[in-house]
Amino acid sequence: MKAKVYITPKEGILDPQGVAIERALPALGFKGVTGVRVGKYIELDLPGGGDAAAEVDKMCKKLLANPIIEDFQFELVPE
Amino acid sequence: MKAKVYITPKEGILDPQGVAIERALPALGFKGVTGVRVGKYIELDLPGGGDAAAEVDKMCKKLLANPIIEDFQFELVPE
Repeated sequence: MKAKVYITPKEGILDPQGVAIERALPALGFKGVTGVRVGKYIELDLPGGGDAAAEVDKMCKKLLANPIIEDFQFELVPE
Repeated sequence: MKAKVYITPKEGILDPQGVAIERALPALGFKGVTGVRVGKYIELDLPGGGDAAAEVDKMCKKLLANPIIEDFQFELVPE
């Protein structure tokens, strides 16, 4: 079982990488792009057995994401 | 139009963040997790008009991803 985890900065949390990208885009010819938010995308392979969704949820809370400033979502992809 | 961009290290490129996570998981009670790869997840709002897919493709190649060591995929979500 493969898991794909999407981690984003929470609404209202300053995202300096997003601000930097948003400022750089017009100079490259991309006008009018707004709301740039930069997060993390993590792929991992889970061992068989057990409740995969519960495991990934725990991994996110304990290690992959910082729940104080980040939201996370994930999907499980059977192989 | 919203774009969601997924950037991953190319196959064979060393991913130190992924290695660090993979080594940390067993100590937290998650056994047998392999193939951890850490990339970036970027959300942005595009202005209307023009060929959104072509624009985002160009943004990825010019700024968001490093095509030498990273792959990217994106999806467009109408609002």
